[in-house]
Amino acid sequence: MKIAIINGPNLNLLGVREPSIYGNEGFENYLKTIQAKYGDEIEISYFQSNHEGAIIDELHRIGFEYDGIVLNAGAYTHTSIAIADAISAITTPVVEVHISNVHKREEFRHHSMISRVCLGVIAGFGLDSYRLAIEALKNK
Amino acid sequence: MKIAIINGPNLNLLGVREPSIYGNEGFENYLKTIQAKYGDEIEISYFQSNHEGAIIDELHRIGFEYDGIVLNAGAYTHTSIAIADAISAITTPVVEVHISNVHKREEFRHHSMISRVCLGVIAGFGLDSYRLAIEALKNK
Amino acid sequence: MKIAIINGPNLNLLGVREPSIYGNEGFENYLKTIQAKYGDEIEISYFQSNHEGAIIDELHRIGFEYDGIVLNAGAYTHTSIAIADAISAITTPVVEVHISNVHKREEFRHHSMISRVCLGVIAGFGLDSYRLAIEALKNK
Amino acid sequence: MKIAIINGPNLNLLGVREPSIYGNEGFENYLKTIQAKYGDEIEISYFQSNHEGAIIDELHRIGFEYDGIVLNAGAYTHTSIAIADAISAITTPVVEVHISNVHKREEFRHHSMISRVCLGVIAGFGLDSYRLAIEALKNK
Amino acid sequence: MKIAIINGPNLNLLGVREPSIYGNEGFENYLKTIQAKYGDEIEISYFQSNHEGAIIDELHRIGFEYDGIVLNAGAYTHTSIAIADAISAITTPVVEVHISNVHKREEFRHHSMISRVCLGVIAGFGLDSYRLAIEALKNK
Amino acid sequence: MKIAIINGPNLNLLGVREPSIYGNEGFENYLKTIQAKYGDEIEISYFQSNHEGAIIDELHRIGFEYDGIVLNAGAYTHTSIAIADAISAITTPVVEVHISNVHKREEFRHHSMISRVCLGVIAGFGLDSYRLAIEALKNK
Amino acid sequence: MKIAIINGPNLNLLGVREPSIYGNEGFENYLKTIQAKYGDEIEISYFQSNHEGAIIDELHRIGFEYDGIVLNAGAYTHTSIAIADAISAITTPVVEVHISNVHKREEFRHHSMISRVCLGVIAGFGLDSYRLAIEALKNK
Amino acid sequence: MKIAIINGPNLNLLGVREPSIYGNEGFENYLKTIQAKYGDEIEISYFQSNHEGAIIDELHRIGFEYDGIVLNAGAYTHTSIAIADAISAITTPVVEVHISNVHKREEFRHHSMISRVCLGVIAGFGLDSYRLAIEALKNK
Amino acid sequence: MKIAIINGPNLNLLGVREPSIYGNEGFENYLKTIQAKYGDEIEISYFQSNHEGAIIDELHRIGFEYDGIVLNAGAYTHTSIAIADAISAITTPVVEVHISNVHKREEFRHHSMISRVCLGVIAGFGLDSYRLAIEALKNK
Amino acid sequence: MKIAIINGPNLNLLGVREPSIYGNEGFENYLKTIQAKYGDEIEISYFQSNHEGAIIDELHRIGFEYDGIVLNAGAYTHTSIAIADAISAITTPVVEVHISNVHKREEFRHHSMISRVCLGVIAGFGLDSYRLAIEALKNK
Amino acid sequence: MKIAIINGPNLNLLGVREPSIYGNEGFENYLKTIQAKYGDEIEISYFQSNHEGAIIDELHRIGFEYDGIVLNAGAYTHTSIAIADAISAITTPVVEVHISNVHKREEFRHHSMISRVCLGVIAGFGLDSYRLAIEALKNK
Amino acid sequence: MKIAIINGPNLNLLGVREPSIYGNEGFENYLKTIQAKYGDEIEISYFQSNHEGAIIDELHRIGFEYDGIVLNAGAYTHTSIAIADAISAITTPVVEVHISNVHKREEFRHHSMISRVCLGVIAGFGLDSYRLAIEALKNK
Repeated sequence: MKIAIINGPNLNLLGVREPSIYGNEGFENYLKTIQAKYGDEIEISYFQSNHEGAIIDELHRIGFEYDGIVLNAGAYTHTSIAIADAISAITTPVVEVHISNVHKREEFRHHSMISRVCLGVIAGFGLDSYRLAIEALKNK
Repeated sequence: MKIAIINGPNLNLLGVREPSIYGNEGFENYLKTIQAKYGDEIEISYFQSNHEGAIIDELHRIGFEYDGIVLNAGAYTHTSIAIADAISAITTPVVEVHISNVHKREEFRHHSMISRVCLGVIAGFGLDSYRLAIEALKNK
Repeated sequence: MKIAIINGPNLNLLGVREPSIYGNEGFENYLKTIQAKYGDEIEISYFQSNHEGAIIDELHRIGFEYDGIVLNAGAYTHTSIAIADAISAITTPVVEVHISNVHKREEFRHHSMISRVCLGVIAGFGLDSYRLAIEALKNK
Repeated sequence: MKIAIINGPNLNLLGVREPSIYGNEGFENYLKTIQAKYGDEIEISYFQSNHEGAIIDELHRIGFEYDGIVLNAGAYTHTSIAIADAISAITTPVVEVHISNVHKREEFRHHSMISRVCLGVIAGFGLDSYRLAIEALKNK
Repeated sequence: MKIAIINGPNLNLLGVREPSIYGNEGFENYLKTIQAKYGDEIEISYFQSNHEGAIIDELHRIGFEYDGIVLNAGAYTHTSIAIADAISAITTPVVEVHISNVHKREEFRHHSMISRVCLGVIAGFGLDSYRLAIEALKNK
Repeated sequence: MKIAIINGPNLNLLGVREPSIYGNEGFENYLKTIQAKYGDEIEISYFQSNHEGAIIDELHRIGFEYDGIVLNAGAYTHTSIAIADAISAITTPVVEVHISNVHKREEFRHHSMISRVCLGVIAGFGLDSYRLAIEALKNK
Repeated sequence: MKIAIINGPNLNLLGVREPSIYGNEGFENYLKTIQAKYGDEIEISYFQSNHEGAIIDELHRIGFEYDGIVLNAGAYTHTSIAIADAISAITTPVVEVHISNVHKREEFRHHSMISRVCLGVIAGFGLDSYRLAIEALKNK
Repeated sequence: MKIAIINGPNLNLLGVREPSIYGNEGFENYLKTIQAKYGDEIEISYFQSNHEGAIIDELHRIGFEYDGIVLNAGAYTHTSIAIADAISAITTPVVEVHISNVHKREEFRHHSMISRVCLGVIAGFGLDSYRLAIEALKNK
Repeated sequence: MKIAIINGPNLNLLGVREPSIYGNEGFENYLKTIQAKYGDEIEISYFQSNHEGAIIDELHRIGFEYDGIVLNAGAYTHTSIAIADAISAITTPVVEVHISNVHKREEFRHHSMISRVCLGVIAGFGLDSYRLAIEALKNK
Repeated sequence: MKIAIINGPNLNLLGVREPSIYGNEGFENYLKTIQAKYGDEIEISYFQSNHEGAIIDELHRIGFEYDGIVLNAGAYTHTSIAIADAISAITTPVVEVHISNVHKREEFRHHSMISRVCLGVIAGFGLDSYRLAIEALKNK
Repeated sequence: MKIAIINGPNLNLLGVREPSIYGNEGFENYLKTIQAKYGDEIEISYFQSNHEGAIIDELHRIGFEYDGIVLNAGAYTHTSIAIADAISAITTPVVEVHISNVHKREEFRHHSMISRVCLGVIAGFGLDSYRLAIEALKNK
Repeated sequence: MKIAIINGPNLNLLGVREPSIYGNEGFENYLKTIQAKYGDEIEISYFQSNHEGAIIDELHRIGFEYDGIVLNAGAYTHTSIAIADAISAITTPVVEVHISNVHKREEFRHHSMISRVCLGVIAGFGLDSYRLAIEALKNK
């Protein structure tokens, strides 16, 4: 089983950026733990970009072949119809995740442009949101 | 570890009600499977009501003692400030769950009054949303 | 043929409450007249509650067995997604009725949450709205 | 007793136009049945036009003399302040009717400009909506 | 003189719930002080419920007989047309009270559905809001 | 000098229609008085229609030849972009008039689609609004 | 007959300020012409202030004694509930005037807070708007 | 192949009306050129009216027989649900055209009520928009 | 203890202005009664102005020295950010009062710009609102 | 004559992506047909990118030299002020095209950020929309 | 070169008022520093008022003679069309300044009524905003 | 002291693009002048991109090391939450600048997504806005 994690803008700064919201752990660290946990059972790849277009390119590249995609589109969650259209265009199911509970934050973070085309949404559990998304895809 | 599942209005009809949206399985069946799965590790109790007030009463009753609450407030999700206030008033963390991906449905289901006071949100994975919520609470 | 009339909040005060809007006749009186009129042809039962949850419970109880429901949800008409979901969940057709012409009154009474899931709507004919709803169901 | 039925734009195509919404029966057929049903008791006249102005002219012509008007203003329901003003200007009571349940359809069909000046509203019962409106006027 | 205090959802947790907003004193304690203060002059009864329907039932029960009602409808203040209709339907004057200054809090607490049908509004003085309401009714 | 008065929908009922708003005098009477007053100095013609299209036709017919047009577009004031476009298309200046003070009436009467393309607006002086408009055009 | 003209903010700069909108004539000049025109028949007084409070003070001072007030409230037209309340509080009828056709200008000039409490509105005829307002009051 | 061109309100003034927006050529002239261009291949008929109802009548008359309709509904584009319903009711495909680029003009011209029921939209190419629409229908 | 009462625009006309809303008693009369009632215990001063700026000046003058301010900002309640900022800038607590129940009146009176920076709000009890505000400040 | 076709996000998947909306033909195929059709008369170049910035770069690169640009900005149509600014900044005229009739689809696809700065808009004719745009530019 | 600084409501309390937002320095102090800095090169005058009308009066008094105006209109920034009109009416260029970054504060401070008529805007640099504005005017 | 200037989309065309709005000077020219002016005191680097993602990458690269950033995000100012999040994530203070006074232009340019996370805003002074921003950072 092949699952891809795709992280959007500013998530490369995880552990550095606003730790009161996003925690102190960098994503690379977490990735190793999660890859170790699922071992041979699930192959977990990783991609991060601050470019909306690069995220779309990546969704196209893997979206007809992988078994699941865990997508934290960061700020593009709230503005990108283009990423939503990419999710509609591919066949791999996508789970939308957020580290923080976006509904506790600014008004403009309460609406997602991509939820409507994803399999489901998981938000607010810190980095554990990613594991829960993998669990959801695995159980599908 | 004690976790309560609380289901709101019309969820007593699960398996009967609009199966294309909610599936064919009744909740009692699913509950047994999930209780069996977590066995002695997690004690899982269950409460369902169509009454907003009864859900508040139940949150008050268990909300200072349990380790976690999995709440599917059904249609009250979108209208009940009173349930949101109850969640704020108690100390047990609450995870909001939905069986369907509410963002694929009518506009008025896209906004939740309670997300803001919950630990996190899980939506769109069918009955598996409940298991993911328990996983999230267990990992807390 | 079995038809149920369900009245929502404050309709127990009919005849007492704001007679310039709702008239001077209590509902029990009117019910007797209407039951007499349809006699053996249609069995007409009656339920009233000020509790949103109780109205949902009643819709569930009769909604797979009766031939029609005449529902005046009172103020819940304008706020209750939960009652609308209950109507969607059952199989008996529901006709929405109002005693007054709600469109002549305050702005917040102009929108109904439940019209969309009912068979049809009848409003503004005083207590005669209930008879017209029965006629509509009978002709179905 | 004299009652007029006035039909607005596109209702001349009834039976031809979008039968999944409006049914297969042309209005002339239905009119004969309903005229036969009420026979000598109620004289039922009929007028149809696609012109907003012609509907206003007709309301003026009969609106001080007839005992009731059954008005299906079609699409003008949602846009015409001029027809609403005509209804206010005349003395004959007007019942607003719709064949389909407009609340199940597009957002812009959910608001009526004329409900506020009509006696009442009946919507969603197919052609039977006209009969119910006549019943309502007869019982007045 | 008979005055009733009615408290809505979550106010049973007063003293426990969010003390930075609602203070540390439970309502039962405060009630005793206020009953003592007015002694024989004013008979002060008390009712609390988390159920919207139960608040309506209570308003109906006492609303044709008492001299005044002090109502803190809690979260239902912002959503309940049904409670507002109950206040319109009864003859006893109702004073709307709030412990906190709701206008300092979330946007959705700034609008009250019931102010329009109450005698007046008192908000922001902690538990003293109740005494001021009684003073207002006494002076009426 | 040639000035045309154009009256829109329902203004043929003046004197009959809602006299508390529009007064008791029919327009034909008033027209005679005003024609007499301006005698040979100003030739005043008159046109009334309930048809939006007929008002546009008339504006086209006279709008390149007359010295001024006094237009009371009635309800079309609030909805007709087509009449506004007709006013833009012609060369004769148009003064918008209203008998009643539309700003004291329903919200939907507060906005005019045509003010923006007229020379000016006169509203609220009863039938005298027409004379003031003629005065304004005469002084131009 | 005593009529007062009250001019609001920035109207002291008439003739100097944005002549393409407001023309080249100062108001004092125009005032002399208009006073001469009505001579002994109508006593016309004049007041201008840039202070909202001063306009209210003046309305109070003359508003129980004069036969009419011609008010160009300038920018306060669009924002001042206080001036509107002053007009409601006095007994002298007030006519709202504007030199320019405000509906041809910025969106925020399309709404007037005071129209609703004035006798009528005259806008767009340059300084002649004042004469038309006097005519309207004279004919009252 | 039979194609009808239908022009709405004020388009009879083309060449006369606001030439900076609509150009200097009258439509009759253009029609001859376009008819000559397509000669025997496509029979092109023409209808213009300022009456909403007449446009609906014409759509009904030809809409079950012609191979295509090129509709410039003028100002009715932005307000007429009735014309949109007529387009839905007929079977001939309709292409919406505009001479000017409506999106460069006033806000209220940015929304079309009829686009949703047309085959497609062509706007902004002057009179050439009509030819492009014929090309589109021909290629269908 | 020193408490100031500050009244805003048009409140100088109390007893004269719209008595059906504001009652027949002038404020000077009422002031004497209230000063007599609290005698030596509380020194009550009074200030009224129709000028927004003068109210701000007064708030600055007394706002670091008095024990409480009772403010009826009249129409400025709904529009003045400047008065709200003045209240934030001073240290004396301010109670917002209204004579009428503003929520029963026009929509634009339902929102207060200053509630958010006041201690609390009291509205709807006629002149008694001022006494209740003094009671609230006294009990502080 | 040199015309460039620029395609935005997800249009590289044409023929693969949602064929019920976008058809089965890939764009490369279609491009060959269209290039063949216009042969030596018009040189047609092609660029596609999922990156908003790359589309802007390309518009800058060719926008002072080509005779026309046919732009299908895909989802960026609805969100990109930056692309609209690029179109304003260059001198080559741009025609906006869409394969599907965007007005039949989700609400958020009804508004275009770029129409206002394009020569015109063509939408709804499948891939033929591109040919029509070339026709429009050719005829310019 | 003559530059005037005009400060609006509550800015007389600078150094006293909400120091966490506005800092601890009074404006008089700062003024001396800035006057010293620019010495003979630029004559810097100062005016402060809490009265909207007084600010307009001052703009009129100096606005045809000074070389630049630095205006911090305080709360009137967000509400005063009258001050904006005064800026349009004068010939001296005006720079809008704010001490705090208004965009970090309440929603109602995010919109300025006067930016549109000013030369430019400088906000968020504490008292240094004034110096930057003088720099901007000096460089003009 | 190290300060970076970052320019967003279309600003590479400065001097070429819409000179009536943006002036005739290219940015490279201006950059040399400003670098010369501050010489050794402040090291001024420069970066421009039309790619939202590239601006974010650059903010990350320099945002923990430089002393200040002057950011003209061009059109991304109004749409990019991702750039705003990048500014929040870094530690270097950012000043938002605009060449034109954006408040004099289209409505959609009046709102900035990034002001809220910047130190301050400077707009409307042509290229001099950049110098003022450097001055502001230097004085910090």
